Amino acid sequence: MKPAERQIAEGILFTDQYQLTMAQLYYRMGLHERLAQFDHFFRTYPSYGNHKAGYCINAGLEWLLNWMAEARFGEREIEYLRGQKGLAGQRLFADDFLNWLRTSGSFDGITLRAIPEGRVVHPNVPLTVVQGPLAMAQILETPLLNYLNYQTLIATRASRMRESGRGRLLLEFGLRRAQERGANAGARAALIGGADFSSNVGISHVLGYPPKGTHAHSMVEVFLALGGSELDAFRAYAEVYPDDCLLLVDTIDTLGSGVPNAIRVFEELRRKGHRPVGIRLDSGDLAYLSVQAARMLNEAGFPDTVIVLSNQLDELVIWQIITQIEEEAPRYGVDPEQVINRLVYGVGTRLITSQGASALDGVYKLVAVYGDGKWLPTLKLSETPEKVPNPGHKIAWRVYDRRNRATADLLSLDDEDPRQMEQLVLRHPTERMMYRTLSREEIMEIEPLLVDVLREGRLVYELPTIEEMRRRRQADLERLDPGVRRIINPHVYHVSLTERLWNLKQELIQAARSGSKVTVTF
Amino acid sequence: MKPAERQIAEGILFTDQYQLTMAQLYYRMGLHERLAQFDHFFRTYPSYGNHKAGYCINAGLEWLLNWMAEARFGEREIEYLRGQKGLAGQRLFADDFLNWLRTSGSFDGITLRAIPEGRVVHPNVPLTVVQGPLAMAQILETPLLNYLNYQTLIATRASRMRESGRGRLLLEFGLRRAQERGANAGARAALIGGADFSSNVGISHVLGYPPKGTHAHSMVEVFLALGGSELDAFRAYAEVYPDDCLLLVDTIDTLGSGVPNAIRVFEELRRKGHRPVGIRLDSGDLAYLSVQAARMLNEAGFPDTVIVLSNQLDELVIWQIITQIEEEAPRYGVDPEQVINRLVYGVGTRLITSQGASALDGVYKLVAVYGDGKWLPTLKLSETPEKVPNPGHKIAWRVYDRRNRATADLLSLDDEDPRQMEQLVLRHPTERMMYRTLSREEIMEIEPLLVDVLREGRLVYELPTIEEMRRRRQADLERLDPGVRRIINPHVYHVSLTERLWNLKQELIQAARSGSKVTVTF
Repeated sequence: MKPAERQIAEGILFTDQYQLTMAQLYYRMGLHERLAQFDHFFRTYPSYGNHKAGYCINAGLEWLLNWMAEARFGEREIEYLRGQKGLAGQRLFADDFLNWLRTSGSFDGITLRAIPEGRVVHPNVPLTVVQGPLAMAQILETPLLNYLNYQTLIATRASRMRESGRGRLLLEFGLRRAQERGANAGARAALIGGADFSSNVGISHVLGYPPKGTHAHSMVEVFLALGGSELDAFRAYAEVYPDDCLLLVDTIDTLGSGVPNAIRVFEELRRKGHRPVGIRLDSGDLAYLSVQAARMLNEAGFPDTVIVLSNQLDELVIWQIITQIEEEAPRYGVDPEQVINRLVYGVGTRLITSQGASALDGVYKLVAVYGDGKWLPTLKLSETPEKVPNPGHKIAWRVYDRRNRATADLLSLDDEDPRQMEQLVLRHPTERMMYRTLSREEIMEIEPLLVDVLREGRLVYELPTIEEMRRRRQADLERLDPGVRRIINPHVYHVSLTERLWNLKQELIQAARSGSKVTVTF
Repeated sequence: MKPAERQIAEGILFTDQYQLTMAQLYYRMGLHERLAQFDHFFRTYPSYGNHKAGYCINAGLEWLLNWMAEARFGEREIEYLRGQKGLAGQRLFADDFLNWLRTSGSFDGITLRAIPEGRVVHPNVPLTVVQGPLAMAQILETPLLNYLNYQTLIATRASRMRESGRGRLLLEFGLRRAQERGANAGARAALIGGADFSSNVGISHVLGYPPKGTHAHSMVEVFLALGGSELDAFRAYAEVYPDDCLLLVDTIDTLGSGVPNAIRVFEELRRKGHRPVGIRLDSGDLAYLSVQAARMLNEAGFPDTVIVLSNQLDELVIWQIITQIEEEAPRYGVDPEQVINRLVYGVGTRLITSQGASALDGVYKLVAVYGDGKWLPTLKLSETPEKVPNPGHKIAWRVYDRRNRATADLLSLDDEDPRQMEQLVLRHPTERMMYRTLSREEIMEIEPLLVDVLREGRLVYELPTIEEMRRRRQADLERLDPGVRRIINPHVYHVSLTERLWNLKQELIQAARSGSKVTVTF
């Protein structure tokens, strides 16, 4: 795409056609400025085939807000829509609607509450709540889901990899395997979710993190092709980067050539007063090679050098590598902890594409429309009870038990405050017989999760820095039950309804099933 | 990201840090303008878990060229690099190198050959061949892979879905589940690979295809919440879009409410002289519901209306739906062909993320460096023979047999012309004992696959339109063996080496293994 085309393709038309055809219909029916509420939430944790997440890390909001602030129906967009033809050759969009879009087709009327980025989140809890004129709130659906689904997916995966790597340094290397420019969103989400740095230069610059990377196999191959050696290549690298010398040692033969050559160069650096950084392993049995390389580096007097691992890593591979090192290192007289603590993980494809679960199933559902002076809840019946959304205006709360651990997220109606209740009844969202009762003594804290972000288009929220999001993530993780954090077969975290919200939902389902008009209001 | 930040994050710094550190090293060694050749190819077809591709569809080149034409080290980029610090606090990039980047850091010296977009391609065949000054050809690695890997992945998946749907209309619906702005690249690739249209408005506009879409469940829910009915919602839609009336019928009860209401509205439209388009099914047993809906529509005199299916479709689901309709339709007195031929497939998540195989393993490998007045081939030894790249300058050919079917792709040295050979020896790339011999009588055509695209940065190629790419794809598919096109367990297509290329590779491997300097030149 050329730059002018990108402005069109990434602006307000970065949405689905049916949002525009519905918007015109609402306009025609006089409903376009009717207030509506949509909830954004995901239904299930990402499932990676042989393992599954027990929590997600919320991400993406700031960039969505940036997009909303810029997106407008300008002359070019209107001109294009004016030219759209239906199947019978007639114009699809009429002038009165296009004029309205041109003058009022912005997100200035949108009020938005959200759970902050970096927080631990769970299924069926509204992460983002949008209130605004029906037509524009509808048009927002696609870009909102586009911006929030992907970053939450990747922040979640990064958190899992960090957990599995026991908090050791995690580097995001996925630019070459991402969905084109989506790579930048992926790198940001990785930083929020658990990566320390990215190899992606541009986005690292924008976000204020130093990009990471040293050299590839090709550098060694250039020296070989010109009649030189791996050692020549390493020496050249050490000469140019004496204080940042991290060498990729598997171009020829890791233990037979790469590590010994790296050690020679490290010794030369040491004699000149520099401190070598370490080596990178990109192929072979990474656990075995880590142990052997650590042993050789230790013997040469470089116990503090790092060992960067890369090559199709994910949380299970990292876990396996650590387990194997724990078993295998003692056999070679190496302290396994000393190896594990010097590892750095470079993760590419499996993080940036969330391999195994390449999309989050986030949805954006109409839950209420304003009419006759009051909010009217909506409901979509579905064949599976789990897919019936929770109706109407809700508040999302997190309940912490006496151990200061999050024990459940609770959805209430918006005039309820569980902090004032004598005891909490936590209703399972679909199973009538399943509920828990918590007395006040069993509860340490009840925390509202949603914050006000936009009030009629105006930002009323101080956006946190990525460092703040990372601290928020860490604090939330520490207040999770270890069983929920587990990377294999995590405990299922409870997301519950209050008694009144449960009753409203049942009433609406009954009314809809019986074919009677839905008369419940709230 | 804000617009100014996006310019930084999507320009020349849309690359990995190690490309820049290597570039400075080459500069320091006086190698930065040394000519080098990199081959871009993928190693294996995407494997989707329970099924696997037998071919890929090449895509992404035009947008890579657009990016290369704009990407430059401007003042802001240089300023940023000047500020980068190493671990010891010293500057990472020196002024002389930055001055060179500022004046010469563009892709103006790059010569590029490629297989055109839309063509059927196979593993280990160079899809893109880059020759140019070592430093800039190295910096190009990451963005080239980013632009080409993803579009080829998606064009391939779209082609499979189209094949499985027997060529019926295929719509791309994935914007909300893509990696942010990567959605636009995905939609383009889907159009090249087999989708007829996309729901994504902006990219459809840019590419000149009408975007597709009608309405969502939310439209019906608005009417219900305001005291109206599904029928009211359908009538409103028909009033606004009388000639484009396609109704989503599963908000309440597909066969009990949605289809009968749609038929009522269609009858009203018919009386007014309009031609209703059809219905969309988005949940439930899509095969069963298609048969029943088709029966009801036929009985009401609407046999020409379409039935759009959506909800987690992919090539296997589509195949299963068709199979089930073939079995089930006769039981209800419905002609299965009449149902199958009116189906339209709307595919979202599983196409735009290529679910099951979320990345193509495309790589960019140094194969030769110019030195002492001649090209010197490079080789990276690897533990697995399949991963040893084919060295040096090569030409890629496609060999068609007497049936006019592609029987193999053949890599030769660049001074070889298989069209002049008395007989062809097709060598397996790694197995010494495996080869085929084809006499001239057995060959209908030998076609060179790579075309000249850039000559020292100048475009020397007329870029095809997407329509031309689609025709190209169709023609290539028709010349593939049906066994290779099969969606489950496809035949393995042969990619072979000429005798001389095979010998060069063996010679290089021997030389590298024996530790002797590589002296082979070509």
